[in-house]
Amino acid sequence: MPLIGEVRAVTAGAAMLADQVRAEQLRVDWRPPIDRLSPDPMVEAANRDAVGRMLAARPAWVGLGVATDVIPRMRSDLLLHSGPPLRLDQASGPMRGALEGALRLEGRDSADLDPCHHHMAVGPMAGVISPSMPVVVVEDRTSGLRAYSNLNEGLGKVLRYGANDETVLERLRWLARVLAPDLARALKAGPIDLAAINQKALQMGDELHNRHRAATSLLFRELALRGLPTDSLRFIDQNDYFYLNLAMAGAKAACEAAAAVPAGTLVVTMARNGTEFGIRVSGEPSRWFTAPAEVPVGLFLGSYTQDDANPDIGDSAITETYGLGGFAMAAAPAITAVVGGTARSALDATLEMYEITLAENPQHQIAALDFRGSPTGIDVRRVVETGVQPLINTGIAHRQAGIGQVGAGLVRAPLEPFVAAFRHFNVPQ
Amino acid sequence: MPLIGEVRAVTAGAAMLADQVRAEQLRVDWRPPIDRLSPDPMVEAANRDAVGRMLAARPAWVGLGVATDVIPRMRSDLLLHSGPPLRLDQASGPMRGALEGALRLEGRDSADLDPCHHHMAVGPMAGVISPSMPVVVVEDRTSGLRAYSNLNEGLGKVLRYGANDETVLERLRWLARVLAPDLARALKAGPIDLAAINQKALQMGDELHNRHRAATSLLFRELALRGLPTDSLRFIDQNDYFYLNLAMAGAKAACEAAAAVPAGTLVVTMARNGTEFGIRVSGEPSRWFTAPAEVPVGLFLGSYTQDDANPDIGDSAITETYGLGGFAMAAAPAITAVVGGTARSALDATLEMYEITLAENPQHQIAALDFRGSPTGIDVRRVVETGVQPLINTGIAHRQAGIGQVGAGLVRAPLEPFVAAFRHFNVPQ
Repeated sequence: MPLIGEVRAVTAGAAMLADQVRAEQLRVDWRPPIDRLSPDPMVEAANRDAVGRMLAARPAWVGLGVATDVIPRMRSDLLLHSGPPLRLDQASGPMRGALEGALRLEGRDSADLDPCHHHMAVGPMAGVISPSMPVVVVEDRTSGLRAYSNLNEGLGKVLRYGANDETVLERLRWLARVLAPDLARALKAGPIDLAAINQKALQMGDELHNRHRAATSLLFRELALRGLPTDSLRFIDQNDYFYLNLAMAGAKAACEAAAAVPAGTLVVTMARNGTEFGIRVSGEPSRWFTAPAEVPVGLFLGSYTQDDANPDIGDSAITETYGLGGFAMAAAPAITAVVGGTARSALDATLEMYEITLAENPQHQIAALDFRGSPTGIDVRRVVETGVQPLINTGIAHRQAGIGQVGAGLVRAPLEPFVAAFRHFNVPQ
Repeated sequence: MPLIGEVRAVTAGAAMLADQVRAEQLRVDWRPPIDRLSPDPMVEAANRDAVGRMLAARPAWVGLGVATDVIPRMRSDLLLHSGPPLRLDQASGPMRGALEGALRLEGRDSADLDPCHHHMAVGPMAGVISPSMPVVVVEDRTSGLRAYSNLNEGLGKVLRYGANDETVLERLRWLARVLAPDLARALKAGPIDLAAINQKALQMGDELHNRHRAATSLLFRELALRGLPTDSLRFIDQNDYFYLNLAMAGAKAACEAAAAVPAGTLVVTMARNGTEFGIRVSGEPSRWFTAPAEVPVGLFLGSYTQDDANPDIGDSAITETYGLGGFAMAAAPAITAVVGGTARSALDATLEMYEITLAENPQHQIAALDFRGSPTGIDVRRVVETGVQPLINTGIAHRQAGIGQVGAGLVRAPLEPFVAAFRHFNVPQ
C-alpha cells in the first residue's frame, strides 16, 4: 500500500483500494479470515460507548510534577520507554542511546524497564522518562483520568532521538531546574484547556503530531499572560514542538477513557518502541498485539538518507489513535514540507482514515473538509476488513545511538497486530 | 458574476467565464473597448519593474508615534478617512459615525477631510485617523518607504465600524495612554519583521485580511519576549484582529514601492469609503478611478440581515492589492465560517485571482496549493480583458451611524474603475 499520494478519491474508489489491499495482502502474507466478524450487537454497543467517551474527552493541563511523585507506580530504579514492552537486548540504537543518557542523568548503572503506557504515560520517540524528570499532568475533565508526559526538549540533539552527550543532559537538567518550576507556578492560576487549543490549532494548520506551531503559539499566549518568566518563554518560543507532549498526554487520557469500556474492538493505543509496533484494544487493554516496526519513508535533514532511518519509534502515534496527526493531515497541508507528499495527498490521507474509524470528532473540525470532524476511533474490524493501514506521520531517528533526528516522514501501521486482535476477539472467550 | 462558490475549475473554464463576463457586461452596461491595449513593451517593462518591487518588499514594524508627529502632512484640523476622496455630505452612516466620534475625541467641532491614502496611511472600515491617535509606522525595508495605520480597537462597538459612544472613545483614550507607550518601548529593541510573520501566518490558516489569529499569535510571542506589560498583552490576546492594521500598513508600503514606477497598469490601491470604491494605478498614482461601492454579501451577527449592510468600506482592500485577503483565501479555509462559502470556493477564489495578476509572490506561499505563491499585482488590462473582478473579503458595517459591525462577507470590486483606467491609459497621453 502506498504511504500517501498515490491513492486518489478514496471515498469513491473501493475497487481500486481492493486491488491495493490484495497486493498488500500478498506482501504481508495475510489472507482475510474465513470467519469474518458478523455484526455483534454487544461489540457494536461497546464500541459506541467507548468512542463516545473518546469524543467526550476534554483534556486540560492541570499540573506539573516529578515523575516519581506523580506517575502511578513509578520507582527510582525504573526507566519508562515508548511502545510495547521491550527487552534491552532488543532495543534499537536510538532507544539504547536514550536509555543510556537517562541512566547517566540519574547517576545509575542500571534500571528496570517498563513501557510508559503501563503507567498512564506517553513519551515521543524513545519516550524515556526517568525518575527525576519533570512531567506534565493532563486530565480528561470528563472522565477525570490523568495522563503524563515529559517536557519537550526541542529539536536537534535531544534525548528522545537517542542523543545523549553532555549538552543533551545539561538541557534536561535546565528543564528540571528552571522551566518546570516556572510552569508549575503558572499552572497554579488554574488548568489550561488543551481541548480548546486543539480545536483552534486544527484550524491554524497544525495536525498536532508533527506540526504544533499554532498550538504552541496559543499555549505561549496563555503562559505569558500568567507571567511565565522570559527565559522560560524564550525556550518555548524557540521550539514549535513544545506542545507535542501535551497533545500526546491529552490524547492518552482520552484514549484511556475509552479503554475503560470492555468488550469492544476500538484501538486505544498505537505505539512503537523502535523494534516493535503494538496496539492495545478496548476489549482487553492489558494485552498488546505486536509486529516488527516498519521504517518510515520521508524527507531527510542534511546529508542523511533513508538508510540512516531507524524503524518506527515513539508513543506519539497516540495522536493518530485520537484522530489527530496523520488522521488530521487535511488540516495541515504545510506539513508536507516536513514529512513529504502534496496538499492533495494530505487531504486524501484524512479521507482514507474515515474508512477505518468509528466516528468524526466534532471538537476536531477540519476547515478544508468544510468543518467535518476528524476521523476518530480506529476499529480493528474495519482495518482488517478494508486492509487500510492507519497512517502515522512521525519524526525519524538515526538508527545508531547518540546521533539524533535525521528526518521526518510517513509510516503505515503494520496489519499483523490488527489481524491478531481481530482473530483474538473473534474467538469466543 | 457570482461572488465565489459557483465558479469551478476556473483555470480550465475560459468559456464559462466568458459567459459570466457577458452577463456582467450587460449589467454594468459595459462593452469591451474596440481598441484593446495591444502588448506595449513600455507598459510590460514598467509592470515587470513595478510588480518586482511589490514582490521584493519586506515590511517591518519600525515604530509607533502620534499621528500629527509622524504622518506626512497631518494637521491638527484634519481627519483622515478610508477610500477615495469624500465630501461629508456624501458620507455613509458608519463613516459619519466614525468622523463624529473622532471629532468628540479631539474636542473639535469641525475638521477638514482627506483620504488616508493621500498621507501614506491606511485605516480599516471607516479608517478614521485623528490628529492625536497613536499610529504604527511600518517600513518596507527594501524601498525604505514608510506607511502608517491606527491601532486595532478589537471587535464589537468600535469607531471603525461607526460606533462612537463613550465606551468607544474611552477605549481609544486607553490605546493612546497605555498601549501605545508600551508598544513604543517594546519597539526600541528593534523592528519586528512583518514579512516573516506574514509568511508563517499564511501557512497557519490566516489570509491576513479577516483572519489574523496566527499572525496576532506570532506577534504576541515577539512582544511578550520584549517584555510588553500584561495589560497590553491581554488587550492583544483578546483581539485576534490586532495584526490587521499592521498587515495593511505593510501592504501599503509594498504597494507604494510599486507606485513609484510610472507608465504601468498595475493597481497600487483598491479602497472604499462606504460610498465609492476607487483604485489608483502605477501609471498615474495621483489619479483615482472610482465607481459606487457595492454592498458585500455575507454572514450576519445576531439578528442583523443583508438589509442592514452598508456599502463596502475601508482601506483594508490594500491587502488584496498586495495578494492577501480574498486573493489568499486558499490558505484560510476556516475563514468561510466568517465570510461564507466553502473550502472549495476559498480555493477557487485564489485560483481565479491568478487570472488577473502579474506575479506569484514567493514570500506568500500557500500550502494548500503546494506552496504556490499568492496571486499578486492586479493588472488593469487583465481585469478588463477577462472581466474577472477582484475578490475582496471584508467586515460589514451597519448602514446607520453609531451601531457598529453587523457581519462579514465577500464583495467584488466594481468593473467600472478598471474600465475607466484601461481607457485612460489606452489613449495616447
